[in-house]
Amino acid sequence: MLKVYLSGEIHTDWRERIIDGAKGLDVAFSSPVTDHAASDDCGVAIMGAEEKKFWHDRKGAQLNAIRTRKGIEDADIVVVRFGEQYKQWNAAFDAGYAAALGKSIIVLHGPDHAHALKEIDAAALAVAERPEQVVAMLRYVLHGELPG
Amino acid sequence: MLKVYLSGEIHTDWRERIIDGAKGLDVAFSSPVTDHAASDDCGVAIMGAEEKKFWHDRKGAQLNAIRTRKGIEDADIVVVRFGEQYKQWNAAFDAGYAAALGKSIIVLHGPDHAHALKEIDAAALAVAERPEQVVAMLRYVLHGELPG
Amino acid sequence: MLKVYLSGEIHTDWRERIIDGAKGLDVAFSSPVTDHAASDDCGVAIMGAEEKKFWHDRKGAQLNAIRTRKGIEDADIVVVRFGEQYKQWNAAFDAGYAAALGKSIIVLHGPDHAHALKEIDAAALAVAERPEQVVAMLRYVLHGELPG
Amino acid sequence: MLKVYLSGEIHTDWRERIIDGAKGLDVAFSSPVTDHAASDDCGVAIMGAEEKKFWHDRKGAQLNAIRTRKGIEDADIVVVRFGEQYKQWNAAFDAGYAAALGKSIIVLHGPDHAHALKEIDAAALAVAERPEQVVAMLRYVLHGELPG
Amino acid sequence: MLKVYLSGEIHTDWRERIIDGAKGLDVAFSSPVTDHAASDDCGVAIMGAEEKKFWHDRKGAQLNAIRTRKGIEDADIVVVRFGEQYKQWNAAFDAGYAAALGKSIIVLHGPDHAHALKEIDAAALAVAERPEQVVAMLRYVLHGELPG
Amino acid sequence: MLKVYLSGEIHTDWRERIIDGAKGLDVAFSSPVTDHAASDDCGVAIMGAEEKKFWHDRKGAQLNAIRTRKGIEDADIVVVRFGEQYKQWNAAFDAGYAAALGKSIIVLHGPDHAHALKEIDAAALAVAERPEQVVAMLRYVLHGELPG
Amino acid sequence: MLKVYLSGEIHTDWRERIIDGAKGLDVAFSSPVTDHAASDDCGVAIMGAEEKKFWHDRKGAQLNAIRTRKGIEDADIVVVRFGEQYKQWNAAFDAGYAAALGKSIIVLHGPDHAHALKEIDAAALAVAERPEQVVAMLRYVLHGELPG
Amino acid sequence: MLKVYLSGEIHTDWRERIIDGAKGLDVAFSSPVTDHAASDDCGVAIMGAEEKKFWHDRKGAQLNAIRTRKGIEDADIVVVRFGEQYKQWNAAFDAGYAAALGKSIIVLHGPDHAHALKEIDAAALAVAERPEQVVAMLRYVLHGELPG
Repeated sequence: MLKVYLSGEIHTDWRERIIDGAKGLDVAFSSPVTDHAASDDCGVAIMGAEEKKFWHDRKGAQLNAIRTRKGIEDADIVVVRFGEQYKQWNAAFDAGYAAALGKSIIVLHGPDHAHALKEIDAAALAVAERPEQVVAMLRYVLHGELPG
Repeated sequence: MLKVYLSGEIHTDWRERIIDGAKGLDVAFSSPVTDHAASDDCGVAIMGAEEKKFWHDRKGAQLNAIRTRKGIEDADIVVVRFGEQYKQWNAAFDAGYAAALGKSIIVLHGPDHAHALKEIDAAALAVAERPEQVVAMLRYVLHGELPG
Repeated sequence: MLKVYLSGEIHTDWRERIIDGAKGLDVAFSSPVTDHAASDDCGVAIMGAEEKKFWHDRKGAQLNAIRTRKGIEDADIVVVRFGEQYKQWNAAFDAGYAAALGKSIIVLHGPDHAHALKEIDAAALAVAERPEQVVAMLRYVLHGELPG
Repeated sequence: MLKVYLSGEIHTDWRERIIDGAKGLDVAFSSPVTDHAASDDCGVAIMGAEEKKFWHDRKGAQLNAIRTRKGIEDADIVVVRFGEQYKQWNAAFDAGYAAALGKSIIVLHGPDHAHALKEIDAAALAVAERPEQVVAMLRYVLHGELPG
Repeated sequence: MLKVYLSGEIHTDWRERIIDGAKGLDVAFSSPVTDHAASDDCGVAIMGAEEKKFWHDRKGAQLNAIRTRKGIEDADIVVVRFGEQYKQWNAAFDAGYAAALGKSIIVLHGPDHAHALKEIDAAALAVAERPEQVVAMLRYVLHGELPG
Repeated sequence: MLKVYLSGEIHTDWRERIIDGAKGLDVAFSSPVTDHAASDDCGVAIMGAEEKKFWHDRKGAQLNAIRTRKGIEDADIVVVRFGEQYKQWNAAFDAGYAAALGKSIIVLHGPDHAHALKEIDAAALAVAERPEQVVAMLRYVLHGELPG
Repeated sequence: MLKVYLSGEIHTDWRERIIDGAKGLDVAFSSPVTDHAASDDCGVAIMGAEEKKFWHDRKGAQLNAIRTRKGIEDADIVVVRFGEQYKQWNAAFDAGYAAALGKSIIVLHGPDHAHALKEIDAAALAVAERPEQVVAMLRYVLHGELPG
Repeated sequence: MLKVYLSGEIHTDWRERIIDGAKGLDVAFSSPVTDHAASDDCGVAIMGAEEKKFWHDRKGAQLNAIRTRKGIEDADIVVVRFGEQYKQWNAAFDAGYAAALGKSIIVLHGPDHAHALKEIDAAALAVAERPEQVVAMLRYVLHGELPG
């Protein structure tokens, strides 16, 4: 069984396309909490409100880290997706974290971001542009079968 | 002696301000190559040209990784600076890499980026806004002396 | 599945409240032997009596360490509870042990102990005051669901 | 050369007695910041004030952790001193941290605390009651010479 | 259960002979993709064509590495087979990789290669000439039974 | 579940007494090949005869190491038994190997050997004289129940 | 200072060209014993003759491994050179060993070997054809200076 | 520089013969305390007397372990000497400890002990009968020079 962590952008359906495409493969997926509001507010919702946004964010980010670190540390493969918008520094952070642990990394991004992501691509074992390519990689890694 | 790696933005004088401020402290600094053109082209300049920008970038990014990884792995403290512009994904990647290695991380950024950097701040032991604060931290860590 | 080790105070029902509250969640709990008399005397009961209390304690503490270390090393999350009474140095020791292994730590204590526990809170990913908050964290980490 | 980290109580002269006693031995000592006020306030003094004591403490504890972790990680031997007063949970935390890293631990405490410290004593390679015994241990470890 | 990775030559039936011979033993085998054409072209088939053979190869080799590294890292035993032909540098690379991870290595090669493989044999716990000897080793390791 | 490796002496029934006594406990035992003749000759029986006893022994010892290392590395607890006779250096070697991996060690030997085994006892978490004490330890570690 | 291990082919002057070219750079080089006869016979010369070539080779290969492993484990960068002739499986083994330790790898080989070395190139951070390119890399990594 | 730890038998002059023979080589030697009486009594001499020999021995063995573990952990090479007499289980324990840490091991013993030491020899990179052979190995490892 392959354990695959899906890190990064939460505004498009890339996770669903990978998970749906990988139906029937022996893969267990994990991912961060992708409900943006819950992810932002989880810390104060459980541990109590903060007046300063900085500590509001800190409580949430550290609580989310419990899930994120387990996901990455348990994974064989970490897929890191960069979307068109936002800073997405947490995705890049996850990639660095995974790299230092020696995880196999697949980066998923459009060609426009290639130069800005060159250090992360250089730490990866594969770079894809579409989720379907990630599915094809998982199938190949498990069964040696190529598409088409 | 403290070994400190200075990761991130290369367009302002933050490294100089830290290094100058830390004169007289027992600190050894290292950093990536901060000559932007050399950093971008080092791979092809030494190993030969590539027609595709993607591989041009790959060659450079991997050659730079020799220096970057040694810098981070040898460091006691990794300072990661995020500037006002650009994606700076390599800085976030370095932060993740340092975090997984258990390095002490100091993040340096303006208040506008606080929300976008909350996961990275949450993995750090300190968050500063100005280089002089980093200098004060180094002095305190070494000698227990507080500013002014 | 989340593996959670429940370290610390054995005089109140906090473990039961967490375990009961987490019914239905995919969590496997472990904990030290919480029968105080058995825990104190296990060494001499099995390996033979000692005249000196120091070695009586040593035999017991080392036998208990077999269980404690396995519990912490196998865990994804270590919850460390500090009660109102006693020195509870073994709880703080467990927290340090877990921190060095990179475990996710949740500290559970009342507000009166906050200053004395600041170094341990600072090594944790979450600080809770009531067991029900720990349950809410486990639910959130597993399912992304917030209370209420 | 032996690198020795002196963790724990800051209200008596035990560190000075060890360092003085070890004059002439090839030992490099390190320790936390022992100026109580500086240690408590370093975070806000450098990074800015906090209204809530909890975050005031957090900023300081994490900044101190930069020094503490380097001290422990670089050490061959960690001496952990428990005094007569206070909770001293950070000393116990340091002991646990050192134990998980496989450091040689010497615990220094009076006989009254023996039962409460039994788990920490059980993780140590030596238990002393007076600083002069620690000095004798360092001399023996380096030169094989026993006292008088 | 023994997890066994079968690295090396793909032109003879040595894997089948080991897997068939080990029927009934509690062994889980894994191996690289042994379809030579798929293995060579997997990178460009999924991620897009390259004009230069060097990058065509790079894409394939890195995608194959996802499978290979998981196989070796999960294994208890790595069997490395050297055939009569070709450079087989990837087999020797796998052996070095396995050695640095502390895996038990069994090398499988004919007597003609003994001198050229002396460094690899010297890092192994067993050297066999025929697949049936590997099967006998697996049976012995699991059940203590010797052939005949 | 506790995984327990039973290392050492093969001339008395101590393994059977532990395994029988632990019936009903959630323990998985492993051990070296205890058939003395098979253990001595396994190398040459499978890989071919040697004229020199030194290499005859080497082949066997390295093949046995495949089983031994897996047993120790997978174990939570390593029980090391020293009998009345023979040098039993491999038992002491296993104890050192287990100690460096941070395994919980239980040493089992009669009082006559206490002085000669003091370094190994000092690296253990428990020292027993009879197999039934080991069984009592396993029951206590799993269920917190003391004998009688 | 960069520590660089020079692994591989011993029949041409590539090591000298790198070491000469790097004069003035803060680099410490190490390498295997490059006297072919000494390297082959060191084991029996010191530990006594063997009738069988297999054990003659084993003694030598294991003695050489003391030097080789220290060289690789101490290095920041491992340069692996593949020449035109011979199997050179030990060079590929060194590359795998270095890769599993996370060392920065530079592979040095002519274009004819590119396909056969694709897995090793894929684990490297740079691929060079001439020793002077390796020198240029070392200069760039240390000083950020590009050639001419 | 090679760091070499000399473990084992303390009744003959083997350490002196190695250290004398290695004069002029860049080797730093360390070893346990070889004064038998001091080594046996160090614990009680510093930490206070014990009525039971078992705890007398424990205190000494654990204090000696501070020196022994540092010696082994810092070493590149661990030489383990087995003499003609006594059980010498601590030497075998050191060998196992060194093996699990991946140290290069040289075993030094007479031919009579070869069968009893086969597991330890099998974990070593060299087996010598005389101290002068160890010196020759150190010279070869450092300089590639063979004797005479």
